[in-house]
Amino acid sequence: MRVAFLGLGIMGRPMAANLVKKGHAVTVWNRSTGKTVDGARTAGSPKEAVANAEVVWICVSDTAAVEQVLFGEDGVADGIKPGTIVVDSSTIAPAATVRFAERLKKQGAEFVDAPVTGSKIGAENGTLIFIAGGREETLEKVRPLFEAMGKQFVRMGDVGKGEAAKLAMNLQIALIYEGFAEALVLARKLGVDQKALFTLIQSSMVRSGVVDYKMPFVEKEDFSANFPLRLMHKDIRLTLEAAREAGIELPGLATVKQVYDRADKAGLSDMDYAVTLSVLASD
Amino acid sequence: MRVAFLGLGIMGRPMAANLVKKGHAVTVWNRSTGKTVDGARTAGSPKEAVANAEVVWICVSDTAAVEQVLFGEDGVADGIKPGTIVVDSSTIAPAATVRFAERLKKQGAEFVDAPVTGSKIGAENGTLIFIAGGREETLEKVRPLFEAMGKQFVRMGDVGKGEAAKLAMNLQIALIYEGFAEALVLARKLGVDQKALFTLIQSSMVRSGVVDYKMPFVEKEDFSANFPLRLMHKDIRLTLEAAREAGIELPGLATVKQVYDRADKAGLSDMDYAVTLSVLASD
Repeated sequence: MRVAFLGLGIMGRPMAANLVKKGHAVTVWNRSTGKTVDGARTAGSPKEAVANAEVVWICVSDTAAVEQVLFGEDGVADGIKPGTIVVDSSTIAPAATVRFAERLKKQGAEFVDAPVTGSKIGAENGTLIFIAGGREETLEKVRPLFEAMGKQFVRMGDVGKGEAAKLAMNLQIALIYEGFAEALVLARKLGVDQKALFTLIQSSMVRSGVVDYKMPFVEKEDFSANFPLRLMHKDIRLTLEAAREAGIELPGLATVKQVYDRADKAGLSDMDYAVTLSVLASD
Repeated sequence: MRVAFLGLGIMGRPMAANLVKKGHAVTVWNRSTGKTVDGARTAGSPKEAVANAEVVWICVSDTAAVEQVLFGEDGVADGIKPGTIVVDSSTIAPAATVRFAERLKKQGAEFVDAPVTGSKIGAENGTLIFIAGGREETLEKVRPLFEAMGKQFVRMGDVGKGEAAKLAMNLQIALIYEGFAEALVLARKLGVDQKALFTLIQSSMVRSGVVDYKMPFVEKEDFSANFPLRLMHKDIRLTLEAAREAGIELPGLATVKQVYDRADKAGLSDMDYAVTLSVLASD
């Protein structure tokens, strides 16, 4: 398919590269110039990139960036043709997603939100899971692209539900890690053998992919960024905003946000979110 | 071995039964009379039960109950002989455990704390994991009993470290479930397809035994007690107490405690702790 890929960050670049590898005709664009993908054409603006595209795929950092790419100067809306499908893999506000989809609909374009789980490694290996919202027929049309970049897509409902489900997933990651970190702080302080505790965790019902993944880094106290704290912090804020708009409280997540606020103040935003362990330990 | 088993509750009774099955000579005692175990002798007091025992195994509800069994009228301390090993599988305060061990040591008895993970089903099937604290030689001496009732024991350090590690494990269970419950409340409110969300959870890194176990009950809204809320609530209070004594803060767990406090006030203490989902949803 002819795909315009907008946003060549940590996730976007390997995703676009996987589309090229599977034989799709890809045109890429990135806000800061100089980033390219082998085998893809490079465009000077979103407008130029989407001119001839069947599908526009967006992977940028936040709600404001998506809005800019779609409706800013020389944006997607300036160049898109009726019948084009726009897929957004950024993690942004569900409510904004619905608004964006409605605006694009007036131009005859269909919208899909498809944020991902699987992080950088999943993007590189093409093993992402897409958490999708949109009409079933639209999702089917872009199935070859999902399959080029990921191992599966799960439809969570109509437009916006993909983003909502993504926030619900990251909420769980945040609380699982918080539990692991608090358990570790307590166990260390009470003199429990840490190796034995890790063995116990891994043979018990609290074992999860989240903790399996972080455990070796925690053991080495290596908090270099894999999933940077500032991004998880952003997702937590988005989630609490969405909850507030929906009139519900998420007390656990609100508390975790305070831990991230402290980490941020301590200048740890560019470290991995696992560094919140140090913040808790420094009480 | 000749074992006195004290406490025939949800956990204790099947544990004692498994000892009998493996050919050990078991004498049982329970605070409220009338409870027995096929093939075991029944004693009228802890003192009477331990008179001829090589090992005393305790499985009661809380710190006060352990103290009463050990040092109350006609308690263990009134009848125990030097060289006896006392194993406590109750989940109680680590600091109290250390004090109890010291008092028993003066009578020549050795102490092991060995709370369990695996719940009622694990107790019945003999697949418990013992989270043990005590001298290695002492633990080795009771290995046949661990093996009769469980699939493994993990030594977390000296006396008291088993209880400390158990609290650290339950802390994680509490936060994993809180994350799952908050995610569900949010996703429902935002209109996400719940079946799709469950599929997504189970194919992602947030999957854990805790959520795998609770998911079908949550789907049926069946909150009948498997692990009663009041017991998890008690463990959470114990953990926060231990943290306070150690001079550390556990902000996530402190927040979860507030959710349990509300559940308690709403009269839900005898339901499963999974019912906290309803408390969160009623905001």
